[in-house]
Amino acid sequence: MTPEFPTSLGTSTADEIRLLGQDLTADLMGEVGFGELAFWLVAMRRPTPSETRLFEAVLVALADHGFTPTAIAARLTYLSAPDSLQGALAAGLLGGGSRFLGVTEDCGSYLHDVVEGTDELPTDDDGYDALALAAVRRTKEAGRYVPGLGHPVHKERDPRTPVLMRIAHEEGLLGPHLRLFAAIGRVHPEVLGRSLPLNGAGVCGAALADLGLPVEMLRGFALLARAAGLLGQIAEEQRRPIGMDAYLTVDRNAVYVDPAPTEED
Amino acid sequence: MTPEFPTSLGTSTADEIRLLGQDLTADLMGEVGFGELAFWLVAMRRPTPSETRLFEAVLVALADHGFTPTAIAARLTYLSAPDSLQGALAAGLLGGGSRFLGVTEDCGSYLHDVVEGTDELPTDDDGYDALALAAVRRTKEAGRYVPGLGHPVHKERDPRTPVLMRIAHEEGLLGPHLRLFAAIGRVHPEVLGRSLPLNGAGVCGAALADLGLPVEMLRGFALLARAAGLLGQIAEEQRRPIGMDAYLTVDRNAVYVDPAPTEED
Amino acid sequence: MTPEFPTSLGTSTADEIRLLGQDLTADLMGEVGFGELAFWLVAMRRPTPSETRLFEAVLVALADHGFTPTAIAARLTYLSAPDSLQGALAAGLLGGGSRFLGVTEDCGSYLHDVVEGTDELPTDDDGYDALALAAVRRTKEAGRYVPGLGHPVHKERDPRTPVLMRIAHEEGLLGPHLRLFAAIGRVHPEVLGRSLPLNGAGVCGAALADLGLPVEMLRGFALLARAAGLLGQIAEEQRRPIGMDAYLTVDRNAVYVDPAPTEED
Amino acid sequence: MTPEFPTSLGTSTADEIRLLGQDLTADLMGEVGFGELAFWLVAMRRPTPSETRLFEAVLVALADHGFTPTAIAARLTYLSAPDSLQGALAAGLLGGGSRFLGVTEDCGSYLHDVVEGTDELPTDDDGYDALALAAVRRTKEAGRYVPGLGHPVHKERDPRTPVLMRIAHEEGLLGPHLRLFAAIGRVHPEVLGRSLPLNGAGVCGAALADLGLPVEMLRGFALLARAAGLLGQIAEEQRRPIGMDAYLTVDRNAVYVDPAPTEED
Repeated sequence: MTPEFPTSLGTSTADEIRLLGQDLTADLMGEVGFGELAFWLVAMRRPTPSETRLFEAVLVALADHGFTPTAIAARLTYLSAPDSLQGALAAGLLGGGSRFLGVTEDCGSYLHDVVEGTDELPTDDDGYDALALAAVRRTKEAGRYVPGLGHPVHKERDPRTPVLMRIAHEEGLLGPHLRLFAAIGRVHPEVLGRSLPLNGAGVCGAALADLGLPVEMLRGFALLARAAGLLGQIAEEQRRPIGMDAYLTVDRNAVYVDPAPTEED
Repeated sequence: MTPEFPTSLGTSTADEIRLLGQDLTADLMGEVGFGELAFWLVAMRRPTPSETRLFEAVLVALADHGFTPTAIAARLTYLSAPDSLQGALAAGLLGGGSRFLGVTEDCGSYLHDVVEGTDELPTDDDGYDALALAAVRRTKEAGRYVPGLGHPVHKERDPRTPVLMRIAHEEGLLGPHLRLFAAIGRVHPEVLGRSLPLNGAGVCGAALADLGLPVEMLRGFALLARAAGLLGQIAEEQRRPIGMDAYLTVDRNAVYVDPAPTEED
Repeated sequence: MTPEFPTSLGTSTADEIRLLGQDLTADLMGEVGFGELAFWLVAMRRPTPSETRLFEAVLVALADHGFTPTAIAARLTYLSAPDSLQGALAAGLLGGGSRFLGVTEDCGSYLHDVVEGTDELPTDDDGYDALALAAVRRTKEAGRYVPGLGHPVHKERDPRTPVLMRIAHEEGLLGPHLRLFAAIGRVHPEVLGRSLPLNGAGVCGAALADLGLPVEMLRGFALLARAAGLLGQIAEEQRRPIGMDAYLTVDRNAVYVDPAPTEED
Repeated sequence: MTPEFPTSLGTSTADEIRLLGQDLTADLMGEVGFGELAFWLVAMRRPTPSETRLFEAVLVALADHGFTPTAIAARLTYLSAPDSLQGALAAGLLGGGSRFLGVTEDCGSYLHDVVEGTDELPTDDDGYDALALAAVRRTKEAGRYVPGLGHPVHKERDPRTPVLMRIAHEEGLLGPHLRLFAAIGRVHPEVLGRSLPLNGAGVCGAALADLGLPVEMLRGFALLARAAGLLGQIAEEQRRPIGMDAYLTVDRNAVYVDPAPTEED
C-alpha cells in the first residue's frame, strides 16, 4: 500500500493552486513579496513588514561578493556547458559550504546554543557582556574559535555590521542573538588578547536567528541570496565573459612537478 | 601577463563593499528589496516599484508546485546527504531543465522572436490578433508547437493567467509579449481546432520579457523562484520527512525484468 | 604577478599529452585499464595487478544498488531535464553523502584511526581480536557506534563481505584494516550484546584503506563506482522510464496538512 | 494503486544481491572489471575482452586534461566546501556540457546519422571516401560544421587519434563509424579548402559508436572518464592546493567597469 505524503506547502487541483494554506493566485501573487514568501516557506508563518525588511537586508548583504570561488566556478561551468543554465547555477551553489559560506550558519548556531543554554536571558548590555564573556572563555578553553569574529579583508570593521544592527534596532528586532553577538564584539579582546571586527555575514546569521528562522536552515538563506548573485554573474558572463580568461590563466601557468615522496603512497 | 577581469557587479576594499556601482551598506541594505536586487543584478538597472510588483508576482507564481520531480529529488538527496544542504538544493535545481521548467523560457523566447521579427508592433487587439494568427499558423506549418498553450492539470483555465494579466495591467506593464500571448489565447482555436488554456508559467515568461529581462536568463528567474520553494521543501523534510517513504515506495515495488531484445545491443 | 599552478597530473603541448608523468597515447591508452588509471590518479602510483583486482572488485560492489534514493533522484532529474545528462548524473551523485554512502569512508576512517593509533600492529588473529575488543569498548563508552556493523536488509550476513575478504586473501592484500574489521566481526557481540553482520560497503572501505588509498578520498571511490551505476540507471530511464511514475506516485498521494503548532515559529 | 517499477539492473534480498541478472558477489565481484561493468550497465550485455580494451582506452583518453574549466571548478568548489566531496565532484561534472565535452557525442551522433542514413555500408576505403565526401558537402551547404575536425591545441595532429585507430584495428573493432571518420579525415580538405586533424575526443565518440553503445549515452561515458580525472584533481587539491591561488588571481585582478549602454536594458 502506498503511504500518504503529507505536506504543508503546496497542492493543486484543476481549478486552484494552494500554497501554505492560501490560494496562490488570489492571496499571494501580487500581494506577498518574494522575500516574504521565501521566509514563509521555511518558517511556516508570514513575516511582519519589519521582519521582511530585516530579512531582505540580510539577503541583499549576502547576495554577491564579486569574484568569489563560487562565482568563478559558476562562470567556468557556464563557459563549458552553456546548454545548461541550471548546471552553472548549481555548480556555483555547490561551493556554498563550510569554508566560505559557513560563517552565517556557524555564527547563528553558536549564538543559538548560548542563548538556548541559559536559564534566563539578560535584560541589559551588562548582562549580555557577562554571558558573552563566559561563552568566549569556554570556547577558548575548548581550543575552538568563536565564529563570526574577524574578516580576511575588512580587518578593522566590516561595513555591513553597523548597518544590520541599525536596521534591526529600527525595526524593533534586536533580539538575544544580535545582542549577544554585539556583546561578544565588546568583550572578546579581554579573552583573546586582540580586537577583531564582527563579521557581517556572522551578523546575518544572528539576525536570521533573531527572526526565529531555524538554525538548520541558515545556510539555505545564504544560498538563496547567493542564487540571485550567481544569476547576475551568469548574465554578465553572457554579456562580457571572463570564464575563458580565468581558465587560460590557470592552464597557461600550469607547471608539471614530480609527485613529492609523501604523495606516493 | 595576467589579464584583467572586468565586472559591473561587485568589488570590495577593506572599508567598503560596492555592488552595481552602489555602496552595499549605505545604499542597498534595508533600502532595496531582495527581488529588486535580483532584477537589478541581471538587467543592470533598478526596477521601478511597478516592475518590482510584477516581477515578484512572477517569482511567487513559480516558487513551489508541491511534489514536483525537482522537489522530490531535493528531498531524496537531503535524506541521503543531510551533511550538505547545498547539495540537496543543487540537486533540486538540476531538474530545472527543458521538460518541466522550460515553458517559461520557451514561451518568452517564442513571443520575443515574433515581437522582434515584426517591423511595426500592433497598436490594438485586432492587430495583435492578426500577428498571433500568423505566428500560430507558421508554427503549425513547421510541425512545431506553440509553447505555453495547455497545461497537464489546469485543462480549462490556469488560475495564474488572469491574475498575472491583471497585475501587469494594473502596473501599466502590459507590453507586446503579454498582449501577443493573450492574442494567441484568443485566436489559436481557429488554427489548431481546439481551445487550450494559456499556461501560467508561460505568462510568467511573457511578463519577464515585457519587463525587459534578457530571454537567455528567463530560465534563471524560474530557478531563483524555485530555490525558495526548494528551501521550503528541505525545511519540511527536516520537520516531517517523506524522503524515506518515497524511496521505499519505489524500491519495494521494484520488479526485475529481463532486458527486452531491443535493449540488448 | 600570476602564480604558478603546479600539478602532477596532466599537461599537454601541441604534439604530446602527458598524464602522471607518462605519455598518454604511447604509455597509457590501451596499456593501462580505466580502474588502474583511477587508482593511479589518486594514489600517485600505478597499482599492481593484484591491487587492481581488489580495487575493481570494490568498485563493482559499490556501483549499483537498484532504486536507491540517488538512483531515483537521477532518474527524476533526467525526466525533468533530459537536456542535461550531466545534470542527472550530478544530481544522483549529490546524494552520495553521509547517510547512505558514508559507511565506506566512515568504516575506513574508523579502522585507520585504530591502526594508526597503535604502536605495534598485531601479528595474528588473537592480537587483532584484542585490538578490536579495545576499540569497540572505547567506542561504546563514548556513546558512539562502530561504523560498518549491521545492514538494514542483510540482517544475518552481507553476501559481499566473505567475497571481498576472499579476494583480498587471494591477492595477498589482507592488511591491517581488513584484519581488524574481521576481528571486530568476531568480538563485538561480547561488548554490544548482539551479533551484527559486517556491512559489505564497510569492508570496501577497509579494503581501500589496505590498498593504501587516502582515507580522505574513500568517499570519492564510492562516488566513482556509483557514477557507473547511475549511467546504467539513466540509460534505462531512456529505454524504460520510471521517473514519471515515481513522481506521480508521490504527487497523487500528497495530502495537505496544517502545520503542527511546533512548526509555526 | 502503486505502479510497479521495472528494472533490468539491480535488486536485492536479505541473502542475495543481483545485478544485471547475475549474482553480484558470486559472478561479478573479482570476476568482471569495473570498465566491463560500466559498459554492461548501459549496453545491457557484457563486452568481449577486445571491446573492453578499446572501451577502456577511450575512458583513459578522456579522463584528465589538466586544468580544464571543469577541473578548476571542482577544485574551487572543494576549496569553498571541503565538507562535501560529492559537491566538488558534481560541480566539476556539471561543466561536462556542450562546449568542452561535446565533441565526443556530437561526433558520434554525426557519424551515426550518416551510417544509419545509408542503405548499404561501403566495403572499402574508396566507398567510405565517397560517403564521407557527400556528408561533408551536405554539412557545409547546410551552413554547419563537421564535429570532430580540428583541435585548439593539436593543430597538426591529435596524438590520440592514430593510437585509438590502431587499437581498434588490433582488436578487430574498426567499424563503420571509425572508418567513416577516417575517410572524413582524408577527403575534407577537398570540400573545406584546408586540412584539419581528427580530434581525438571525436575518435572516442566514433569508437564508442562502433562498440554499439547508444549515442544518447556517449556524453555519459565522457563524464564517467572525467569523474576519475576529477577525483585525481580533488585528491591533488587536498595535497597541494591551487584553488586559493586560482581564486585570488581572478579576484585581485578584478576591475569595476560601468555597464556598457547596451548592457542597460
